[in-house]
Amino acid sequence: MSATIEPFDTVDLIHAKRDKATLSTAQIDWMIDAYTRGYIGDEQMAAMAMAIYLNGMERDEIRDLTLAMIASGERMSFSGLSKRTVDKHSTGGVGDKITLPLAPLVASFGVAVPQLSGRGLGHTGGTLDKLESIPGWQADLSNERMTDQLESIGAVICAAGTGLAPADKKLYALRDITGTIESIPLIASSIMSKKIAEGTSALVLDVKFGSGAFMRDIERSRELARTMVRLGTDAGVTTTALITNMNVPLGLAIGNANEVRESVEVLAGGGPADVVELTLALAREMLTAAGQPDADVEAALKDGRAMDTWRAMISAQQGDPDAALPVARESQVVVAERDGVLLEQQALPFGVAAWRLGAGRARKQDPIQHAAGIDLHAKPGDAVTKGQPLFTLSADEPARFARALEALDGAYRIGDVGDEVHDGGPLIADRITA
Amino acid sequence: MSATIEPFDTVDLIHAKRDKATLSTAQIDWMIDAYTRGYIGDEQMAAMAMAIYLNGMERDEIRDLTLAMIASGERMSFSGLSKRTVDKHSTGGVGDKITLPLAPLVASFGVAVPQLSGRGLGHTGGTLDKLESIPGWQADLSNERMTDQLESIGAVICAAGTGLAPADKKLYALRDITGTIESIPLIASSIMSKKIAEGTSALVLDVKFGSGAFMRDIERSRELARTMVRLGTDAGVTTTALITNMNVPLGLAIGNANEVRESVEVLAGGGPADVVELTLALAREMLTAAGQPDADVEAALKDGRAMDTWRAMISAQQGDPDAALPVARESQVVVAERDGVLLEQQALPFGVAAWRLGAGRARKQDPIQHAAGIDLHAKPGDAVTKGQPLFTLSADEPARFARALEALDGAYRIGDVGDEVHDGGPLIADRITA
Repeated sequence: MSATIEPFDTVDLIHAKRDKATLSTAQIDWMIDAYTRGYIGDEQMAAMAMAIYLNGMERDEIRDLTLAMIASGERMSFSGLSKRTVDKHSTGGVGDKITLPLAPLVASFGVAVPQLSGRGLGHTGGTLDKLESIPGWQADLSNERMTDQLESIGAVICAAGTGLAPADKKLYALRDITGTIESIPLIASSIMSKKIAEGTSALVLDVKFGSGAFMRDIERSRELARTMVRLGTDAGVTTTALITNMNVPLGLAIGNANEVRESVEVLAGGGPADVVELTLALAREMLTAAGQPDADVEAALKDGRAMDTWRAMISAQQGDPDAALPVARESQVVVAERDGVLLEQQALPFGVAAWRLGAGRARKQDPIQHAAGIDLHAKPGDAVTKGQPLFTLSADEPARFARALEALDGAYRIGDVGDEVHDGGPLIADRITA
Repeated sequence: MSATIEPFDTVDLIHAKRDKATLSTAQIDWMIDAYTRGYIGDEQMAAMAMAIYLNGMERDEIRDLTLAMIASGERMSFSGLSKRTVDKHSTGGVGDKITLPLAPLVASFGVAVPQLSGRGLGHTGGTLDKLESIPGWQADLSNERMTDQLESIGAVICAAGTGLAPADKKLYALRDITGTIESIPLIASSIMSKKIAEGTSALVLDVKFGSGAFMRDIERSRELARTMVRLGTDAGVTTTALITNMNVPLGLAIGNANEVRESVEVLAGGGPADVVELTLALAREMLTAAGQPDADVEAALKDGRAMDTWRAMISAQQGDPDAALPVARESQVVVAERDGVLLEQQALPFGVAAWRLGAGRARKQDPIQHAAGIDLHAKPGDAVTKGQPLFTLSADEPARFARALEALDGAYRIGDVGDEVHDGGPLIADRITA
């Protein structure tokens, strides 16, 4: 209301979105720039985020928001590489360690896979937390070392620099404490601004639905995937998405060190069927995007090529691929109370339980306990007999078991042979393309 | 998510309101207490306020919010007075100086009228700003002096202490910058928490609708009035409301000193018809609530009783009722461009123009210019002749005229005799009772 050189008034913009108007490109550009430099306050952006959450955004607004967040920071470029780059992003889930076998598997076909990853917060773990279970492994790489490693080995999993989409970092932290995370326009622009700023030429999205995912509902997951595929395509990034089931934990390991162990099993040609299935499906998507639709990804897991790339990738980042992984000081086994069939194993409570055991953090600055977590011994549909171990909880501090078991109350169920198994359907439910 | 002694999680509460759940009494009590002591941050409360704006609140939630805001501070009591107390609140409008003649008029019937008032922000003026045009007049009174003045004179218009409903003060300031002002649950709880905390035994509300009011729409004004009447009644305060038209400025004076001048005209038995009509109607409501339904309020304006109380009230607060009021250094007259009838005179642009002339402030700390403002020389429905003055702008700084005239572009219209006059209908549109 006072004389100012700013082209818009913050409250006018909040009113517009509150009253279901469409924000213009100039308004969104200004809003993100003004928020990044602190002219728009956190309290104003929080009101805007809630208005966006409740009233949505048009397709053009989501594109403008994504581009404005990209413009808030630096853009990387891999155009100097001799290889094609393909990136993958998962919206996150319980036991989701797919990046670990996937990056070296795809890289073993001569493709560059730059996986700029994060640490976990809440019940879903972070890829960097998992890899930091490996003695010596370093998450931080300079852009130059990253480029060198992409050229020589092909696979890099490292911490995202602070220079990419700083507006998104600031907005994400705000959304986290203001109840505005689960909004399709905000999730889509957050993920895609980082991925487009990273400079990849192709991107495969693993968009999860179900009790352990951001989006419980498969239709909302499809909408999120369509939104992101459109954003990538419009920005010149070849983008496809798989819609995958996160009602049940992925694989048998939930934690950090145990998820690395399971990933190495997959790279050795073994591992749980669901982890292998999703790794192969995503690898095929990525290699198709990189111009190798007929790549025999299964063979690369069986014949050690993917494992060789894994070992090279870990070693290049000061990790020892042969080192023993940490083991928790305490463990507790939960057994079947009756004969029958495991009908249910809900992802969210198992994720919360692993987090309470010490595998995750409540606040950004909290340490995690790399050996803490849960190992599952049966999956939905498996026959079980009374007294048979169903899962093992591991923790460094035995005081943590009680609250973890509390989270698991009612989270799994044994029924009779022939009863309906509640696993939410097939692992890969749909594929979304431009 | 971390171990804490707080009974609720802030984000859980935001999620609940975001997802259209009803908050419990315990949740609302905790939320307002935690916000007042700073445990809940402004960004979290801003997201909550936007969720309340867009998803509304149930009747019980509004009651709980009001009670929680009252509980955040002190409560006054006038139970020691020998008189009955009746308070009045207007939701604010352009040219609304009714408190000035009304308080002494009602007090002249032996009723105590404690008007704890505020200063203006934006296009609606503040009662204290108007009275501060009177040389020497003091807005700040101790509770003891206020009680003494109520006992001896009956009428007090003074600044609200900082101890009443501090949660409301904090929340109102936040709403002002986050686009969450015009929400019925938030307006109703804000007004009523202060009024109930003030300890009045009866309350008359002037709820305005139209272009110069918070609520443009009469139906929304009725809903706001019903909500507030219910809150007052539930808290044991006899509460009624008039729904009044704010499409056209009230009276002929918009500003500060000129509004005092107009108020004194009313107290002298003259003044514009609409100001007199509303003053009398509100006085009858207040006196009915105080047990004097047959009081002859018109006579008290004509025979000088109300004027005597006005003079005593102003003098008791160090004001000189006979002092000359400030006059602006510059003025500019706008005349009719043709013969005809004044068909339209929109409240909002006239309020904005007066504000731009210096009568209002953009930020709390800004000074105001008491002599700045607008004097109207015709009202909608009046016949005008070409060259006849329509209104006079007054300001201390001539540079302000251009922007004021800009605000008035299209704000008034002269048509032919017989054309429809757009004044939004009768001044008093409805009456709401418990």
